[in-house]
Parts: sequence; C-alpha cells; structure tokens
Amino acid sequence: MSDIIDRRDLDFLLYDCLHVDQLTEHPYFADHNRQTFEAVVDTAIRIARDKFEPHAAKLDREPPSFDGDRVHIIPEVAEAIEAFTEAGFLSASFDADDGGMQLPYSIAQAYMAVFYAANCATAGYPLLTLAAANLLATHATDEQKERFLEPMLQGRFFGTMCLSEPQAGSSLTDIETVAEPLGAGRYKIRGNKMWISGGDHELGENIVHLVLAKIPGGPPGVKGISLFIVPKMRLDDAGNPAEPNDVSLTGLNHKMGFRGTINTALNFGENDDCIGWLVGEEHQGLRYMFHMMNEARIGVGLGATMLGHAGYQHSLEYAKERPQGRPAADKDPTSEPVPIIEHADVRRMLLAQKAATEGALMLGLFCARLVDDIKLAEVDEDTERAEQTSLLLDLLTPIAKAWPSEHCLEANKLAIQVMGGYGYSSEYPVERLYRDNRLNAIHEGTNGIQALDLLGRKVTMKNGAALQLLLGRVNADIERARQTPELVELADALETATQQAAKATMTLTGAAMQGKVDLFLANASVYLEMLGHIVIAWMWLQQATIAHNQLDEDGLDTAREQFLHGKLQAARYFFRWELPKVARHSELLSSLDDTTLSMQPEWF
Amino acid sequence: MSDIIDRRDLDFLLYDCLHVDQLTEHPYFADHNRQTFEAVVDTAIRIARDKFEPHAAKLDREPPSFDGDRVHIIPEVAEAIEAFTEAGFLSASFDADDGGMQLPYSIAQAYMAVFYAANCATAGYPLLTLAAANLLATHATDEQKERFLEPMLQGRFFGTMCLSEPQAGSSLTDIETVAEPLGAGRYKIRGNKMWISGGDHELGENIVHLVLAKIPGGPPGVKGISLFIVPKMRLDDAGNPAEPNDVSLTGLNHKMGFRGTINTALNFGENDDCIGWLVGEEHQGLRYMFHMMNEARIGVGLGATMLGHAGYQHSLEYAKERPQGRPAADKDPTSEPVPIIEHADVRRMLLAQKAATEGALMLGLFCARLVDDIKLAEVDEDTERAEQTSLLLDLLTPIAKAWPSEHCLEANKLAIQVMGGYGYSSEYPVERLYRDNRLNAIHEGTNGIQALDLLGRKVTMKNGAALQLLLGRVNADIERARQTPELVELADALETATQQAAKATMTLTGAAMQGKVDLFLANASVYLEMLGHIVIAWMWLQQATIAHNQLDEDGLDTAREQFLHGKLQAARYFFRWELPKVARHSELLSSLDDTTLSMQPEWF
Repeated sequence: MSDIIDRRDLDFLLYDCLHVDQLTEHPYFADHNRQTFEAVVDTAIRIARDKFEPHAAKLDREPPSFDGDRVHIIPEVAEAIEAFTEAGFLSASFDADDGGMQLPYSIAQAYMAVFYAANCATAGYPLLTLAAANLLATHATDEQKERFLEPMLQGRFFGTMCLSEPQAGSSLTDIETVAEPLGAGRYKIRGNKMWISGGDHELGENIVHLVLAKIPGGPPGVKGISLFIVPKMRLDDAGNPAEPNDVSLTGLNHKMGFRGTINTALNFGENDDCIGWLVGEEHQGLRYMFHMMNEARIGVGLGATMLGHAGYQHSLEYAKERPQGRPAADKDPTSEPVPIIEHADVRRMLLAQKAATEGALMLGLFCARLVDDIKLAEVDEDTERAEQTSLLLDLLTPIAKAWPSEHCLEANKLAIQVMGGYGYSSEYPVERLYRDNRLNAIHEGTNGIQALDLLGRKVTMKNGAALQLLLGRVNADIERARQTPELVELADALETATQQAAKATMTLTGAAMQGKVDLFLANASVYLEMLGHIVIAWMWLQQATIAHNQLDEDGLDTAREQFLHGKLQAARYFFRWELPKVARHSELLSSLDDTTLSMQPEWF
Repeated sequence: MSDIIDRRDLDFLLYDCLHVDQLTEHPYFADHNRQTFEAVVDTAIRIARDKFEPHAAKLDREPPSFDGDRVHIIPEVAEAIEAFTEAGFLSASFDADDGGMQLPYSIAQAYMAVFYAANCATAGYPLLTLAAANLLATHATDEQKERFLEPMLQGRFFGTMCLSEPQAGSSLTDIETVAEPLGAGRYKIRGNKMWISGGDHELGENIVHLVLAKIPGGPPGVKGISLFIVPKMRLDDAGNPAEPNDVSLTGLNHKMGFRGTINTALNFGENDDCIGWLVGEEHQGLRYMFHMMNEARIGVGLGATMLGHAGYQHSLEYAKERPQGRPAADKDPTSEPVPIIEHADVRRMLLAQKAATEGALMLGLFCARLVDDIKLAEVDEDTERAEQTSLLLDLLTPIAKAWPSEHCLEANKLAIQVMGGYGYSSEYPVERLYRDNRLNAIHEGTNGIQALDLLGRKVTMKNGAALQLLLGRVNADIERARQTPELVELADALETATQQAAKATMTLTGAAMQGKVDLFLANASVYLEMLGHIVIAWMWLQQATIAHNQLDEDGLDTAREQFLHGKLQAARYFFRWELPKVARHSELLSSLDDTTLSMQPEWF
C-alpha cells in the first residue's frame, strides 16, 4: 500500500494542519487520543492492503452479473467487507448510543480515504450502507433503528439510496414513485428507480432501500417528497428477514468504471405488494435526504481525491524507476538514459497531480473536521457556533464534491500520460482509476448542479454570510502567511484572487437582484471553478505556512526536510500555475457573458 | 451516420473555407472536380454507416484475442475493410503511377475522418497500411514497390510501423534491434518491438512490417538507425507469401480504449531466421520514418478530432430530446420539463465541444491542404513555394497532433457529462469514444514530445522563419476580419494574443541563446498549449469571417442561416472563453518559471 497512500501526508494534514487530535480534549471524544486514531488508520491500511486492493483489478474485469434470477459478485468482495466490518469500521463513527465508537468523523473519513484508494468499487458497499445508516441514526424512530440500523452497523444488512428515476435523473421534482398510506406508518410503494448503486446482491441478509416517493395529495414538486425504509426482505417479529417485499431487479447498468459497485434499475411494487415505512414526517423526505447527501457529497469528493492520489503514487513510483531519454542539454546518445522523473515535463505532470490531490485531500478532511466541530457545538448546545460552522460547511460542500472530481480526474489523466503506453494498458491500475474517477462528476448531483447550488443558494443565503465567513478565514491565513517573507508571494497572490472573486460575486448578485436570474446563473460552473481554486489555494497556503515553520525546527531528518520542501514546491506550483486562472474566470463572470445563454438550440 | 458526422460542417470547411475544389484547376488534379469529391465522401459515409459503425461497440466488447497460436478478430472487421478497399479508399490518394486515383490528400483526410468517427479501431487497420504504403511509395525501389506496395494498395497485404521497444518507448536513440548485412540489400533482423498496432492478424495474406533497426558499426543514437521491410511471410518469386519470416507474436497489450486495433509485442528473429530488406540508404531510417510520421501525426490529430466530433453529435442529439428540469427562473414544479439543451450549462458543454472539434477539424484539413500545396509546388518544381509551405506545415504538425488530443478528449468528457449516468454507461457510445481518445495524447510521439518538437525545433528553425510565416498569415486574416465591425472584437483579441505569444517566444529564445537550454524547454508543454490556442482561434476567425459574409447573401434558407449563426456563436465562445488563456500562459512562460525544473525528485 505504500504505493497508493502517502501516510506522511495523511498525518501531516490530520495533525499538523487540522489538529484533529485536539478534538479529544472535548469530553465527547475523550475516549480517544492520537494513538488510537493512528491505530485505526494503521488497521485500515492493513485491511485495505490485504483484502481490498488485491482484487480491485479482477473486480473491474469481472463485475457483478445478473443471471435473471440472482446477482453474482466475486467472493473477494464479501471477504473484504467482512474484514471491514469485523474491524469495526461500519459503526466506528456512530454515537455510543447507536452502538458506535464515537470516533470523530475526521478520522472516519481518513480511514475511508484509505479504502477508496485501495478499491473504491468494493468500498462502495459499506460506504452506501454507512450513508443510509447515518440517515437512520438521525431521523428514524427507536423501533426503526432497532430493526434496521442495528443490523446495518453489524454488517448483516446493507443500505442504498433510491432517488433517481428513469425519466428524472437529476430532477427530483419529477419523481413519480408513489406511496399510498396503509396506516400505522406503513405505505404501499409503487415505482421505478434508476442508477441505484448496491441495489441488489447477496453480500448480506438484507438490503435496506431508502426510497424517495410521493404520497398522493401532497404538495407538487420536491415539497411533496417523503422518505421510506423499503427493505428487500420484510422482517419477522424477531427482526429477521422473512419474506420478499416485492422489490425486483429489472437490470444492471454497465459502466465505464466503478464497475465493481453494482448499479441497478429497480422496480418497487410490481405485484402491488411492496411495503415501505415512513421515516420522520410526511413531505419532509428531501430535507432528510439532503442531510445525508451533503456528507455523501464530501465523501464523493474524497473518493475522487483518493483515486487521484493513488494514480499519483503509481505514476511517481514509475517515474522514479523507468529510465528513458536524456536531459534536454545532453546531446550525447551514448550517455546513460535517466529516470524519467528527471525530465521537467514529467515533473510538471507529477507536481500537478500532487498539487491537486493533496490540496483536495486537505479540503475533504477540513470539511470532515467541520462536521466534528458542528457535532461538538451541538453537544455543547452552542447554537451560534453550530450555525456559523454549518454555514461554512454548506458553502464548501459543493466545492468539496465538484473540484476534486474535475481536477483529480485530470490528475489521473496525467498519471496515464507519465506512464505512456503502459499507463494506457490494463497491466497497470492507472487507466482503471481514470475510468473510476469519471463517475464522480456525475453522481450525488452532477457538477453542474453543484455549481447552481453554490452560486444560486449557498453564496446568496443569509445575505452572503457564508461567503463572508469564508473570506474572513482566508484573509486571516493570508495575514498570517505574510509575516514570513518567503510566503509573501503566495499571500499576495491569494489576496488578489479573493478580490477578483469578490468583484465577480458582486456583479453576479447585482444581476440577480435586478431579476436577471438566467444571466446570474448561466455561468455558475465557472463560478464554482473560480471559488474552488481559491479554496484549494487557501488549503495550500495553510500547508505552506506550517511546512515553512516546521523547516525552521531543529533536528529534522533529511526525509522530513525533503517532504516539507515538496509541500512548499507544490504550493508554489499551485499558486503560479493554477491560481492565476481566477483572473480570467473573474473577468468572464464580471462581464456577465451571455454566450451560452444566447446560443440557440437550432444553431447547433 | 447523421448523428456522428455533420456533413454541412465538413463541406463548409472543405469548400467555403479551404477551397479544396480549386485544387482541380491544376493539371495534377484535373481529373477531379467538386462533384467527384462529394461522391467520394458520400461513399465513405455510406460504407462507414453500413460497415464500420454497426460493429464498433461489439469490437470494443470483444477485442482481438490470441490463443497462443492464432489471432482472432470478429469477422465484421474484415468485411468492413473489404468494403473500404473495394471502394478504392486504400489507393485513392496515391499517384496514378503507383496505381492510385491521384485524389487530393485533403479529400483523403476528409473521408478518413468519416471512418474515424464511425469506428476508429477498425479504421486503424487500413490507416496503418496507408501510412506504411505512403512511406514505400516515397522511398522504396521499384522492385520493392511491386512486391510490397502493390499488394498493400490492393488490400492483400497490411502494414505496420515498428519503432518502439520495451526498454525505449519514446526514445529512439536507445533502440537495440539489430540488422546484420547479408548482402544484396538483405539483412538479418533480431530484436523486440513493443506497442505495435496491427502487429499480427489474419485480415489479409501478409503483414509488411516497417522496422527501425541498427546496423552494427553505424553511428550511435538516431543517426545509426536504418529502415527495413520485414514481412511476416517471405514472398516467392511470384510475389506470393511462401514461408514464415521468423516474426513471432509474444503477447497482446490490453488497452483502455482503441481496443479493436490489436496492439502487440513482437519478436523478430527468435530463431535467427528473420530477413529484412533495406529501404533507401543505410542510417537514413529515421528521416524516412519522420516523413511518414508527420502525416501520421496529422492523422492522429484528425482521429482525436473525429472522436470528439462523434461524441458531440451524440450528446447534442440527446440534449435536444431529453426532457429534464426547468429554466432557472421557473419555480413552478407543475410546469413541463424542458429539453436539457435549454439549460445554459448544457449549452456551455455543447458549445465547448463544438468550438474544440470544429476548430480542430479545420486545422486538420488545413494541414492536409498544405500537403496538397506542397505536392503541387513539387510538381511545378517551385522549390521556394514548396519550402515555404513545408515550413508552415512543419510548425503546425505538433499542434495538429497534440491540441485535438487534449481538447477533443475534453470534448468527449463533456459529452459524457451532458448525458449524465447514461453517458457513463456502455448503453451509449460516448464513454467508448472517451476511452478511445485517451490514446491520442500518447501514440505517434507523446504530447510532451510534440511540445519539445515545437519549441525546441520548429520555432527556432531557420531563425524563426516558420513562426514568422504563421504570424504573417494570422495577421493578414486579422486585418481582413477587422473590416467587418461585428468581427472587430475577435480580431482585436487575436491580435493581443499573438503579441503575448510573440513576447513569450522572445523571452524563451533569449534564454536558449544564453545557453539555458533546460529553462528554455522546461515549460514547452505550456508553449504548445498557448500557440495551439492561437492557431485554433485563427481557424475560428477564418470561419467567422466567411460565415459572416455568407449571412449577408440573399436567399439563404433558415437552416443555412442557423448553421452560420452557430458558427459565429462558436467563434465567440472560443474567443471569450478559451483564447484569454493565452495571457496566463504567456506570463508564465515570460517569467521563465522554474517550478517544475527546480522540483527535486526526492521532494515528491
């Protein structure tokens, strides 16, 4: 696994940058300390290396299949998940009351990151189960928790999220699945769901589908959506799966990547015998789902990051070992070829991968740390702090999802390029990582939807309070960095970029206030890209500041010094090569360019 | 095929922009006229639709296999190639003396473009044969032509190019294949070749490998490379394949895309019984190969373009038909969903595809037109004109290869995104096109090598004469465009960009003259990207000028008007959204940034 996880980097981010160990000073996390955190990550690395990574290529070649009756998945998947469950990774981050270990979410994301890097397709099954379990832990009744959540955390039941339908991919307004009340919280479910990951398999005793459906007579659109627990098998009084619940698999979707995570089309109630149990209140389904979805979006971004990170590690190892060509200034054909890492263009491709993936990893962990902060604020009943932190997290979430799924995919593209023909062949994993990663810009809300969420909702909410909060934190770190002469270049560059972004934001919100909603939102994707670059630059400024301070310490060993120099150089790369894009994006946005909007469909 | 080729666009580029029909005013092409050109393209579209496209997905799912003894390829491939050959497409562009139709290369590229869009993997077999045949037509003896070239143009023999070796991918300096003289132009060949497309199969009677090897005692490095004809089967006196030539298939490379074009590792002379025939003179192999390779690079760029073009057509069709969501200003959930092409962000993704692929297509055809111009200048024995035109083509070649393979891959990425989950699934072709296209940045010289070729060789050759020539032509078109008020914005933007590029070029060449070769070449990839954007903007400025003039004509039908408006809008998109990147690239280059160069391997 040394080749797919840079443990130094993970620890640098968790402890030196994000001070996750300080969480244990709070009574809620008092059972833990840095040693227990590290032990958890050690275990994750061991299981990921022994049980997840070895079958990743095989699972891609031999994805789940459906013989018309049953689903078949290579046995290594079940073995890996069993090891995952036995180590306690399913329940670790849940409250002790729900049977968990009350581990910080930051650490849970850190160990999930390890599994994503090793084999994202197999990790998909527990990930989906965790997401569904999370939702039940927050919104289900005690009885529902006992019957469904407990066996999920024990690894006996698996979970899914059933949102999309064939006619309504991203548009939840238009879902047509119906839930007719039968009384006592029971509903008869009828409808088709599409793109359901983990929708059918025999990895456990049961599958708990969390289904969005509409109760007849409710409000139109998303305000009429309710959330239901719809198990594949109905339970007997003892809580054991007893009889089929009329949920049928109508087909598998065959994908370019992420092939090992089964993706299904499901039919609920084909024989009019599918029962669902309402979660929470009627018509509140979207709200509950969004709670889960926000964490899932951070998870998708982290998954994209780790695919990029794994590709980076593979191509780095290759570049250090593969001899080919000579330095540009060496014209002697009889001299020895050098390892390709000696070529500036190869270093460019490695630096670009490092800058994207390590910047994105810090953002993912930073968001996880905010989740922990919100939890502690809630435990402390500090509403003000909980709200402020939530504001920041809400703003960052679409960026944490979309930015890595664009730029760490680009990193995977570069990993292939570093390795040339070998990178393009299935002999090495980088082409698979690239295929896997292409999904992340699509699922859990396409990046276009993330952009609309960011600009149309998050930036404008509470009169721009979230953006003010973000810029306040960024500026504080800029001031801190500026006190170090070597970091002034970075501090100045980020200050300029934030000013450019602020200008574009004012122009855009001005257009919105004049009622030009179409024009305001037309280039939302560019806005996300712009703010994303600022956020990642901020992550790098923090890393650079800390790395610089550590370099001043006495008694560093050479390896540590080299690591810290690498951090400073990657920061410099991001600031010189990437951050200047903000200027162009700001100009385009500030011009309220209507090129896309005024293009007519019949002109194509 | 209406969905993968926009015939209006092809004709607009060939005749309205590039005036390919004017070639027939020269006696050399006097047998042809626009009608015969159109008939050729009609035939290509018919055969591509009937014989190439239908098996593209199947060939991807069931790629060539090797049972240890023989290679198996689904039968549709041979049928398609037979139809291709019967229609005369193998020999069409060759001289009448070599058994060809003397069709302009521009038209040959236009019909090849159709086949690339339909099924690039199957098209790969005749393409490779054409490239090898081209080389033989130029450099082989009459006897060699009779024995090898003739059956290739008849579709009986296939061709390959054997350059790479396992230990020397891009570095031809280091090839180790040996050719020991046996007298009478015969050599004993011994060595291993890697990444050989079309290296073994039974689609024809024989395979003619063109092999780079070194004759013992020759100069070191690339100056000691010679070129050999090494048939899979040796011929009897009548020219029929008679006995094996000790060329053995040691394995297949399994790739992410382009799966239908078999890719092989070959062993020459395992039993010391492999005979090769020298082409031309000893130690001149690389020069001969480069002649072919330059056209192959234009072909790779055109292939990348057409994969992008096909993806664009698929996603455009989907976007027009798929209802989902509502306009940003419409908050009524009971209103009807609109086709997704109504969403600005979807139009952005379609415009980006249109701008990249139609810009790149013009560049590919423009280069082909230069090949024709050179041919006619040679026929006219006008050395000056031939040299000038060659200079321009030499400069554009690395751009014509690399730019489409980056930006039309990006177009394929966007085609997937437009189609969401469907785009990521193998039910639609866009994910396959994306996988196929990823190869184009790697083969025929990686894009990093193209960048070194552009900056290190083409920009500096003859004291920068080629770049002067290019900028002269660009400036002339800027002046022409400026006479139309609506195009002044574009003209000014391109003028600014060319000035920025000129500034960066001066700084870079200044560094080279001071002996800072490493610094000069460190960011060559950025230079290629910068100059590439200028060249594509130039292509769009020409298209916009012509489209604008045509819009002034009387009696246009609505469809034509819409098409021309689309051209103007795509040009505007490229100039506003893409061309401003030149400023940032120019700044980075002008700063002689050494971030990649000063990064140390051990800092990663």
